[in-house]
Amino acid sequence: MKINIPESDQERIVIVGGGFGGLTLARELKKQNYQVVLIDKNNYHQFQPLFYQVAMSGLEPSSIVFPFRKAFQGEKNIFIRVTEVERVDTDQKQLHTPLGICNYDYLVLAIGADTNFFGNEEIEQKALPMKSVSEALHLRNRILTDYEIALSVTDYEKRQQLIDIVIVGGGPTGVEVAGALAEMKRYVLPKDYPQLNTDEIDIHLVEGADRLLLGMSEEAAQKAQEFLEGLDVKVQLNAMVTGFDGAYATLSDDSKITTHKLIWAAGVAGNKMPGLPDEALVKGRRLAVDRFNRVQGTQDIFAIGDIAYMEEPDYPKGHPQVAQAAMQHAKQLGKNFKRLSKGKEMEPFSYKDLGSMATIGRNRAVADLPGFKFQGAFAWLIWLFVHLFQILGAKNKVSIFLNWVWNYLTYDQSLRLIIRPKEGPADVARE
Amino acid sequence: MKINIPESDQERIVIVGGGFGGLTLARELKKQNYQVVLIDKNNYHQFQPLFYQVAMSGLEPSSIVFPFRKAFQGEKNIFIRVTEVERVDTDQKQLHTPLGICNYDYLVLAIGADTNFFGNEEIEQKALPMKSVSEALHLRNRILTDYEIALSVTDYEKRQQLIDIVIVGGGPTGVEVAGALAEMKRYVLPKDYPQLNTDEIDIHLVEGADRLLLGMSEEAAQKAQEFLEGLDVKVQLNAMVTGFDGAYATLSDDSKITTHKLIWAAGVAGNKMPGLPDEALVKGRRLAVDRFNRVQGTQDIFAIGDIAYMEEPDYPKGHPQVAQAAMQHAKQLGKNFKRLSKGKEMEPFSYKDLGSMATIGRNRAVADLPGFKFQGAFAWLIWLFVHLFQILGAKNKVSIFLNWVWNYLTYDQSLRLIIRPKEGPADVARE
Repeated sequence: MKINIPESDQERIVIVGGGFGGLTLARELKKQNYQVVLIDKNNYHQFQPLFYQVAMSGLEPSSIVFPFRKAFQGEKNIFIRVTEVERVDTDQKQLHTPLGICNYDYLVLAIGADTNFFGNEEIEQKALPMKSVSEALHLRNRILTDYEIALSVTDYEKRQQLIDIVIVGGGPTGVEVAGALAEMKRYVLPKDYPQLNTDEIDIHLVEGADRLLLGMSEEAAQKAQEFLEGLDVKVQLNAMVTGFDGAYATLSDDSKITTHKLIWAAGVAGNKMPGLPDEALVKGRRLAVDRFNRVQGTQDIFAIGDIAYMEEPDYPKGHPQVAQAAMQHAKQLGKNFKRLSKGKEMEPFSYKDLGSMATIGRNRAVADLPGFKFQGAFAWLIWLFVHLFQILGAKNKVSIFLNWVWNYLTYDQSLRLIIRPKEGPADVARE
Repeated sequence: MKINIPESDQERIVIVGGGFGGLTLARELKKQNYQVVLIDKNNYHQFQPLFYQVAMSGLEPSSIVFPFRKAFQGEKNIFIRVTEVERVDTDQKQLHTPLGICNYDYLVLAIGADTNFFGNEEIEQKALPMKSVSEALHLRNRILTDYEIALSVTDYEKRQQLIDIVIVGGGPTGVEVAGALAEMKRYVLPKDYPQLNTDEIDIHLVEGADRLLLGMSEEAAQKAQEFLEGLDVKVQLNAMVTGFDGAYATLSDDSKITTHKLIWAAGVAGNKMPGLPDEALVKGRRLAVDRFNRVQGTQDIFAIGDIAYMEEPDYPKGHPQVAQAAMQHAKQLGKNFKRLSKGKEMEPFSYKDLGSMATIGRNRAVADLPGFKFQGAFAWLIWLFVHLFQILGAKNKVSIFLNWVWNYLTYDQSLRLIIRPKEGPADVARE
């Protein structure tokens, strides 16, 4: 069965994945002389840099995601399909999906990366990842549910398991989660749970290297650690979590930390796409691409964003797996498709580092901009505005801005709600 | 095991259920000379009159619910426990819950009512109820997912099953859902799904009586039907849905309607509470109470709201199962507890009908106020402000107001997101 998309004289570009890379590319291809099919397993784009605020009850999921159909309303050459891709058949130039077979003339893989548990199955089964808005919401529900249960637990050790949290990975996500949890512990929990002794809540941040924020400057790392320790986060460097049984996390020195919740933000691996040539797969399960983002060993398949591994003279180990790189890849590839359609040669990509930032809490952030490093309240303000500016949709901007102002003034995240859509037996009826 | 709540010299009132009745009562009992325990299976109060807007992508769940802990921050005599009640032991004056046994001096059942399928198991298994924010969110996900699937279905009959919707029950919920769906069909779907012929979407509203809105005036019913038919809703009166196999709904005259989604808003039955005297249980699974809301056959157990059945001279068949009645019960009972604590006699309850309203769509509502019936744009404005005024929390008011203004101006509900919290294997770790 073929997927139901109108036949067209235009060449068809199929983009798999609507993250920063896929979405940016589809927008570049609006009104160009191609038929564009955007496939994603969700019906919305997710703004990953704010997942942690969803997990920490600061923002609603709906504020940081945007429906694809709304983003492309009225665009006659863009077709959206919400489905998974099972595999690619490079000989037939086809994707296999539950909705049917989708032919392509050009295929762009913007499938991103998912949590990497480095083969530790015990951790994979019991740890909490945070690589989608659904996972962030699940984490929120877990944190809140555990505090509710903790109220009724009189055994000290058991209660510690419920209220203590270990975060693994000292990159931006780990740092931001730790900071937000520490603020929740300080400002919100004593009011919500007067029966709990919130001093008993321990927040651990465990990092394998000898410093935090490896992708950023030494100054940023130093200051982030200072900020976190000022908020009572227990930062452990040069330490790895080697096991987690749901009650205790085991560290590389065989010490144990009591916890029921292990948040895993320690690394990513590219999402899988069966059917590609073996030679394309490199370290971190990324796809090796040339300077035109073309996947090694293929002619008409491209990869952009976190999944793409491109070496260039200034970046001999590839680009960082961040939103900026994905968007830059997408913009260049969009231009190259335009050139192709006019019979011109493609132009090679060069990455331009625009800097990076991480926020730790109220008035506390660290920023490395090109030629300009700063930390503290000003960095925090810049962080807020950069993220507000980047998020898709005027309504989302307004909603996030109001939430932030509200949370800032009231010292309170008001979204401490354990809401799950009820999946009833009615779902069975679909089969 | 006993539930972990501090011992106190005060008498303990346990309220089960934090809907309109339970929440209002707990607020009345703030700072009174009782220890109050509020038990609910959710950690938030739900504003039921706006569930349908969540289901129709108009509002976020978080805008219409409010965390109990926030509502009672700083109240030293109020204790909140998020758990289910398994049964009541009237001899021991104890509730059994998964968190342990909870003693009471006075028990107030504000457990409300749930969807009544009138014993039809096939319908119960396959229909979509809308009596909680979780169910509303589930309905939203189902509607959106089905449109996505419909895009890939070329068979006419199968596509009709995915896009047509049957709503059973012509009360306020049924009318409001039908109106909102009709507007989505008219304003939103053609833009989101240009490939779908939205004229093919049929919305059916089926009601057993010979008119809609049985609890309201004849004028209101007439006008509501006129509004709905103006929006192309197919209203069928004097008709019952007798079966639903997930593909076709069967009506009492053996005719069939093609549909995969049957929204059931045709009646309610009281929630169960094992352990109460048999004599208390009356029609609609409600609990018979005297004029002091005391459950028949008990001394220290009260019932308020939808679950309570109280006859009084003006209401020989009991009060309507609406928010107003629940809040009035709660206020009177709160006063009576205060009188009890001062050694005074309780005062009997009298219901005061403040009127009722239903909204059908943009600028279209019907209102029956005491001595004053009106329909149309003014009723719609009044409806908006009454609901905005009633919703708990300043932030919710702001958020709903902005959403409504936005939706009104843009002819668009922007929350068309299929988001499910990811329930991973990590949940298993808790067991």
